[in-house]
Amino acid sequence: MPRLAYLGPEGTFTEEALRLLDPTAERLPCANVPAALNAARSGEADGAVVPLENSIEGAITTTLDEFAWGEPLLITAELLLPVQFSLLARPGTEIPHIKRVYTHPAAITQCRAFLARELPDAVVVAAPSTAAAAQEVSLPGSPYDAAIAARIAGEHYGLVELATDIGDRSDTVTRFVRVARPGPLPEPTGSDRTTLVVFLADDHPGALLEMLTEFSVRGVNLTRIESRPTGDGIGRYFFHFDFEGHVADARVGEALAGLHRICGEVRFLGSYPRADGIAPQIKRGTSDAEFAEAGGWLARVRAGQV
Amino acid sequence: MPRLAYLGPEGTFTEEALRLLDPTAERLPCANVPAALNAARSGEADGAVVPLENSIEGAITTTLDEFAWGEPLLITAELLLPVQFSLLARPGTEIPHIKRVYTHPAAITQCRAFLARELPDAVVVAAPSTAAAAQEVSLPGSPYDAAIAARIAGEHYGLVELATDIGDRSDTVTRFVRVARPGPLPEPTGSDRTTLVVFLADDHPGALLEMLTEFSVRGVNLTRIESRPTGDGIGRYFFHFDFEGHVADARVGEALAGLHRICGEVRFLGSYPRADGIAPQIKRGTSDAEFAEAGGWLARVRAGQV
Amino acid sequence: MPRLAYLGPEGTFTEEALRLLDPTAERLPCANVPAALNAARSGEADGAVVPLENSIEGAITTTLDEFAWGEPLLITAELLLPVQFSLLARPGTEIPHIKRVYTHPAAITQCRAFLARELPDAVVVAAPSTAAAAQEVSLPGSPYDAAIAARIAGEHYGLVELATDIGDRSDTVTRFVRVARPGPLPEPTGSDRTTLVVFLADDHPGALLEMLTEFSVRGVNLTRIESRPTGDGIGRYFFHFDFEGHVADARVGEALAGLHRICGEVRFLGSYPRADGIAPQIKRGTSDAEFAEAGGWLARVRAGQV
Amino acid sequence: MPRLAYLGPEGTFTEEALRLLDPTAERLPCANVPAALNAARSGEADGAVVPLENSIEGAITTTLDEFAWGEPLLITAELLLPVQFSLLARPGTEIPHIKRVYTHPAAITQCRAFLARELPDAVVVAAPSTAAAAQEVSLPGSPYDAAIAARIAGEHYGLVELATDIGDRSDTVTRFVRVARPGPLPEPTGSDRTTLVVFLADDHPGALLEMLTEFSVRGVNLTRIESRPTGDGIGRYFFHFDFEGHVADARVGEALAGLHRICGEVRFLGSYPRADGIAPQIKRGTSDAEFAEAGGWLARVRAGQV
Repeated sequence: MPRLAYLGPEGTFTEEALRLLDPTAERLPCANVPAALNAARSGEADGAVVPLENSIEGAITTTLDEFAWGEPLLITAELLLPVQFSLLARPGTEIPHIKRVYTHPAAITQCRAFLARELPDAVVVAAPSTAAAAQEVSLPGSPYDAAIAARIAGEHYGLVELATDIGDRSDTVTRFVRVARPGPLPEPTGSDRTTLVVFLADDHPGALLEMLTEFSVRGVNLTRIESRPTGDGIGRYFFHFDFEGHVADARVGEALAGLHRICGEVRFLGSYPRADGIAPQIKRGTSDAEFAEAGGWLARVRAGQV
Repeated sequence: MPRLAYLGPEGTFTEEALRLLDPTAERLPCANVPAALNAARSGEADGAVVPLENSIEGAITTTLDEFAWGEPLLITAELLLPVQFSLLARPGTEIPHIKRVYTHPAAITQCRAFLARELPDAVVVAAPSTAAAAQEVSLPGSPYDAAIAARIAGEHYGLVELATDIGDRSDTVTRFVRVARPGPLPEPTGSDRTTLVVFLADDHPGALLEMLTEFSVRGVNLTRIESRPTGDGIGRYFFHFDFEGHVADARVGEALAGLHRICGEVRFLGSYPRADGIAPQIKRGTSDAEFAEAGGWLARVRAGQV
Repeated sequence: MPRLAYLGPEGTFTEEALRLLDPTAERLPCANVPAALNAARSGEADGAVVPLENSIEGAITTTLDEFAWGEPLLITAELLLPVQFSLLARPGTEIPHIKRVYTHPAAITQCRAFLARELPDAVVVAAPSTAAAAQEVSLPGSPYDAAIAARIAGEHYGLVELATDIGDRSDTVTRFVRVARPGPLPEPTGSDRTTLVVFLADDHPGALLEMLTEFSVRGVNLTRIESRPTGDGIGRYFFHFDFEGHVADARVGEALAGLHRICGEVRFLGSYPRADGIAPQIKRGTSDAEFAEAGGWLARVRAGQV
Repeated sequence: MPRLAYLGPEGTFTEEALRLLDPTAERLPCANVPAALNAARSGEADGAVVPLENSIEGAITTTLDEFAWGEPLLITAELLLPVQFSLLARPGTEIPHIKRVYTHPAAITQCRAFLARELPDAVVVAAPSTAAAAQEVSLPGSPYDAAIAARIAGEHYGLVELATDIGDRSDTVTRFVRVARPGPLPEPTGSDRTTLVVFLADDHPGALLEMLTEFSVRGVNLTRIESRPTGDGIGRYFFHFDFEGHVADARVGEALAGLHRICGEVRFLGSYPRADGIAPQIKRGTSDAEFAEAGGWLARVRAGQV
């Protein structure tokens, strides 16, 4: 039974993701993303589950920067979790009683319509996390009447759910990843994703175009790009990339080697099954079989057997 | 004397940026970036100053999203402000007395070495902004002994500066922009920058490569790319671009028109003088004179005058 | 009634092409391609018809070089003529009598199977042109018993057709063009072709890729490329290009202007209706309407109307 | 002592090239290029020397087509031969006596100025080759007074040289290649060239751009491109390419394998030392050492050793 660190406290969406990724794992809540990842690095945990991006808020930059700068870890799985906010309160509370709501700022933003419609007069206060808000509301003398958080947080802290799925958009999703210390990669499944961090060798015009060409020429499709500052001043960035396919695929391997040759540093962050199960469209000439056949042809050419 | 809204309260780095951008402007502090931009939109202010990116923290995503989704505004100037954190306290306080420090989480991250070395036993508490921390500390009964904030905040709130430039990196910079309601653009200066938001028409593989090619083929260099979620699910992004040059330049104009033709929507966010004064390298065949000459040639060709 | 020069003598495939292109024209046979083109240049003729390429033999390099180096002319029409060779002899001759065959070397190559099967013992002698061969055979004391030439040559010179369509391939085609002195271009028809000669500015690696990118980025498809030596030594070439579309099309015009900006010299050789009537696939964002709309958008952007 | 077939008869520029490529070889003159190549294919000769291109006339299309369609042969060497035409006559002849000149049409074209200046009244008649012209003039009862041919032809046929280097351009060069039956390739020298024939898989727009990108992305520079008709109608072409480097080079090998994967057929025609001794500029990331290092990195990544 593995022990997995995660972004706590108990009741976070991350915990929900962890339970779905591995229902039997022992769970180790941590105060923040770096702490969860460090628990995996140090061996205190066998791995960690952290959020990577949200369909409304965008990248979780702490996670991106930890992956880029911290001790290497490998992503071994991903999960897309619909984010459903619930209005949670101590038993006995009813909506008309609610004067003060406590929740994370992202939830304030995402539940704006519900708050305006159902709680137009309530004061809404920013909390460090939705789970922390639920925890606080559960305390007997809390100054807050309700929290907006995941349903799981209500279960943890003994709150009742007064309203369900109160976000403005019902299709909000957060992408979580499970990471482990470096070791054998997950086997290719035919529907895989590969994640990289790339630092430029020198920041010349056209460097990004050249990087993308290394992938396109081998038929490897980009699914995400994020730029992050290197810290060396405005205008200096490194890049997070997600691409279709597994590094064991010939086309992905050759593209990565190409990127490695022209860039300052390529940090491989893992090849793992896609949560959405989408299989890549493999462009003519880029399947493993075609790579192998071309390799055989090249060997014969080099031997003068034409 | 223009009236400029900004990310307040008084004493923020944004106020410092505003004073440098326009020393004579009347200043209107606002609670957050959307409020500052809305003041400019509504006419309550003549413009606004907001942060766009930081060399350590990266993009200010609230600003990016406001520019993409809110009523159109145009960037008319940019400023690169070195971010120097000061340790500020009520008069009479000395460093050994400090038990509780109040500041914004970004400042906690960026002053980690100073805190560990000089205030190893202090409790550090997260504030909504550095200026708000200074304001709080200035109150007589405050539970906090010191704030980390801009020197300007100390001046505003009557605090003394116990330590200067306490960030781990002394070269941290924030990029601020001044915006106005749509109107005549700043004149080209020869060292300009153009900012865009681009939504894809359909998210096919290679779409990003195609966009970058529209620029590279006209010799226009990219200086920043940020992807942001469209809100329609993981894997769906739109893009913020900064490019060298002014939309009045022939090469930039043609590239923008090209982008407009192949993308779902291009939102122009402004052409304005670069804060760093760097002039672009103009690739053979892409100067305004060469565009004009080629246009004359094409007109003659179309008239059969060869 | 125009007067058109052509590659003679009477009875050539070029004459056949001229008659199809303009049945009513007065015909001026010339000794070779330069002479025909010079007749058009000097005003001795109103235009000329010359071969450009053949589906077996390839480019007619004399024509290509004349177009590149001689006084400018414009292509105003093209014709694809199936090349059918006939075995022609003086009346009374029968196949078993034929001991000596006279024809152009290209016809020898292309009728190899017929000659081996039907005239295995005949001597085949090279003539300057197929029409000249027919003319020679028509002379009473000719040492040759038969010519291989166009049926039209037989009609001209009073020969009978002993065998029809004797080429190894029945689908051989020659492409002819009609040219005129520079003047108003043919109107766009929706199925047009544009022909260019391009000299590089400097022969750097990647120059050809850059030229092709100028076209591909505007959705203009290449249909023919020929390299020819500049005369300045092995490794120095200029290029003939055929592209889909008419220079009056926005996408073609912008591509040509782009090419003009980055190349040493672009010589426009004409936009004219395609003989095959194929309409181009117009890539999203590259229609005239989309160019016009983008131009309007750009004008508004430049005026700050966003 | 190898036996080499060549484009005869004795006294051709090709013989001169052969003597320079291998002074000790036994020489087998052949009637035309296919015959010379067939002698090499059949084993009648150990190899052959044929012209590939001329700096004025362009490609020798018979050679290109033989290489593309005939039994495979490999180029093992190239030679750049300055083409110097001489005016040759029987002993005793002087320039004022010359009434009829015999030579190949290419020589007529290239010596136009000399003929106009020195022999304005002479009749110039087309011969099948310059060497055949010299041979004919050497015959006692020849109707011709002089030939234009290589000096070597004069030596062969006992003619005297009345004028030397009479071409309009003194820098005309022909490129010859030596070919052999398939076998071990010449070793890489650091200044090599690779020659290919490429047939498209399907003739879609952009196919040529894709082919060139396979090379450019690996830093391999194109030095020659020729299109030739496939025979399947106007608009259907295949390509001859020369590229810098040797197929044993990692960057060239990967590019060839890439081309092989996306094209219908790639026929390798050889890697051999460049006659001009120019070494390629090797772009960052494309040296053999960088390819090897990237391969090692990829192997570690695939093993999860990051």
